[in-house]
Amino acid sequence: MSATVISDSHATGSVGLVTTRMVTLFAHGSPMPLDSGASLQPIQVAYETYGELDANQDNVILICHALSGNAHAAGQHRLDDSKTGWWDGYIGPGKPFDTNRFFIICSNNLGGCDGTSGPSSIDPNTNQPYGLNFPLITIGDIARLQRALLDHLGIHKVLAVAGGSMGGMIAMQWALDYPERVAGALIIASTPRLSAQNIAFNAVARQAITQDPDFNLGNYYQGAKPERGLSVARMMAHITYLSEKGLHEKFGRRLQNREHFSFALETDFAVESYLKHQGSTFGKKFDANTYLYITKAMDYFDPFPDPETTARRLQPVHARLFVMSFDTDWRFDSSRSKELVRILNLHQKNVSYQEFHSPHGHDSFLLPDHEYQRAIATFVNRLYEERRRLISSVGLPV
Amino acid sequence: MSATVISDSHATGSVGLVTTRMVTLFAHGSPMPLDSGASLQPIQVAYETYGELDANQDNVILICHALSGNAHAAGQHRLDDSKTGWWDGYIGPGKPFDTNRFFIICSNNLGGCDGTSGPSSIDPNTNQPYGLNFPLITIGDIARLQRALLDHLGIHKVLAVAGGSMGGMIAMQWALDYPERVAGALIIASTPRLSAQNIAFNAVARQAITQDPDFNLGNYYQGAKPERGLSVARMMAHITYLSEKGLHEKFGRRLQNREHFSFALETDFAVESYLKHQGSTFGKKFDANTYLYITKAMDYFDPFPDPETTARRLQPVHARLFVMSFDTDWRFDSSRSKELVRILNLHQKNVSYQEFHSPHGHDSFLLPDHEYQRAIATFVNRLYEERRRLISSVGLPV
Repeated sequence: MSATVISDSHATGSVGLVTTRMVTLFAHGSPMPLDSGASLQPIQVAYETYGELDANQDNVILICHALSGNAHAAGQHRLDDSKTGWWDGYIGPGKPFDTNRFFIICSNNLGGCDGTSGPSSIDPNTNQPYGLNFPLITIGDIARLQRALLDHLGIHKVLAVAGGSMGGMIAMQWALDYPERVAGALIIASTPRLSAQNIAFNAVARQAITQDPDFNLGNYYQGAKPERGLSVARMMAHITYLSEKGLHEKFGRRLQNREHFSFALETDFAVESYLKHQGSTFGKKFDANTYLYITKAMDYFDPFPDPETTARRLQPVHARLFVMSFDTDWRFDSSRSKELVRILNLHQKNVSYQEFHSPHGHDSFLLPDHEYQRAIATFVNRLYEERRRLISSVGLPV
Repeated sequence: MSATVISDSHATGSVGLVTTRMVTLFAHGSPMPLDSGASLQPIQVAYETYGELDANQDNVILICHALSGNAHAAGQHRLDDSKTGWWDGYIGPGKPFDTNRFFIICSNNLGGCDGTSGPSSIDPNTNQPYGLNFPLITIGDIARLQRALLDHLGIHKVLAVAGGSMGGMIAMQWALDYPERVAGALIIASTPRLSAQNIAFNAVARQAITQDPDFNLGNYYQGAKPERGLSVARMMAHITYLSEKGLHEKFGRRLQNREHFSFALETDFAVESYLKHQGSTFGKKFDANTYLYITKAMDYFDPFPDPETTARRLQPVHARLFVMSFDTDWRFDSSRSKELVRILNLHQKNVSYQEFHSPHGHDSFLLPDHEYQRAIATFVNRLYEERRRLISSVGLPV
């Protein structure tokens, strides 16, 4: 299999130019079953790969994106792209997910709006966008579709599944649902379940969207989109992604292009201007229905609801788990990661944990930092070397 | 002067039946100047009083309400009222603001929507509601109107000014602006200034309101009101009033009237249902323009922007200041109160401080609690006794 890397830019540490590939799964035969009891057919998946697959498939790393991410995790789509993939600081030659060593796969999540089937996709039964006819999905469904993609690619073993925030939930789900396939899971800035406060913020976001008159019960694809509601949802969520300290240091009470208060209902402070820009940009590019579906999937995630379920679900898990958190993250604060570690330790799983100091709150996992990069590199390289030693010791070709 | 207490219910600790009074100030002569440079005339003020004014005016306590409060701080408007005034747990016979001893005044803030002039009031120049023609106001303007009300009532000395959250800002403003009139200020769950994060939340709230198509540039008084935007703003703000721990204990991940997930875009969790109810109720009863104006006034509050201004403003202040905070308050967390105390101590002001343990977050100041009640009672009674000792020692009639 050839990766989607087109140009080679090892010198810059970038995977260079990449393209997003599309594949249609569950086109024939049985549809994909969903946790809700519904099923879906066909399902299109958008994905990118970086690096080369080993003959023994010992070097596969599956990258899972968060709420607003997509398949484009590294490199550039065009030479004049001002932005690189969302985890470009971590994926590339010489980077923690080193494309000289690993074969990296990242796909747009089920329910998404960037190539993989979601509410904005065409429902083959109606030839119209699904809208709210798209079935509700779970983190388990997202992982199930990723597994189907890997099956399609002929890949049956994953060295590591890695993700931050909701991506960390998906990585945890992989370790639970496909224990025979996963050697390691990297769970960053995540949580074993949403708290009442997390659910509350999601509920407000959904309310902002569904109360936008342009929402039109989700049937807005032919006309005006509920950009205003979505932008409000994003502005609010964005506050939770940054730390109070980070906002203070970046903006404080600095005024925006003015020396005195406006004494009008105008933008006075730089932080207001920044948030409005973030909301407006996101409102135009993201699909509001996807926002509804994905926040619901996060609300539902709760793999360890009681001791019996926890014991049953963790019994077959043998992956090495590495949990990372950031001390200023208040969306999923470190105590949530510690709770996950406590559960895993209680069940004698192979887990390690590190809390990092960062001023950047929840979004820290997206920002390149030598200390996080080193920790991630150490984890995935150890997995790789253990795997090769194992193969070597049982006489398989290395 | 007679208080507005109509029936006497000392046995129950309630001030009993009360009425809100209305007075028109600045009806003739000069208008009230505002910090923006604009001025306002006439201004209606809604206020309530509880208890009896001493002949020497030594027992006046001015109560300042927060964002969504009003003049109705204690008692009931009708015998069948299911709700009492917003600080009924603290005001009444035998309560910390003991109406057997003190004369309590609470007025609706300037810019409000519950009797005092604000954007929903009639502009005498147009005979239409002001809407966005109402001038922007500050915490200083709010205090200035309270002072005018007291002048109108013939009251020139205040034993204590007390308030929580924005009410605490107003209390601080009184100590700064009218140092010769104020013996004490009680500043609860407040802050010397909004942080970037606080401003950010206010900015999202204003965006939710102004993007509501029913907002109509603030001219909505004849038609549909921007209830949806206001309800979203309130839902979000409500999250910041409660602690994560409090939300967890009250709701956790409990489902609302169902045993299983809906797998639909419905209300699954109890916390969602609660927030939607809070938002919807508030959206119907509160004025969206007032929400815009008052959040702006909070954003602007910053009495200690630099060392020179701080020194100049604090120089004449001789009030006793008591700062209270709650350990789970994350809207204005304890570090903000400590910062205020640090500033006051640095300038050798008479300040004391206590942080209270509470699971209830920012809203703790509204909830009756024996420990907070005792601390408040101790502070105001000491002020009262000092005042009477002083009068006694200089030979004035007691």
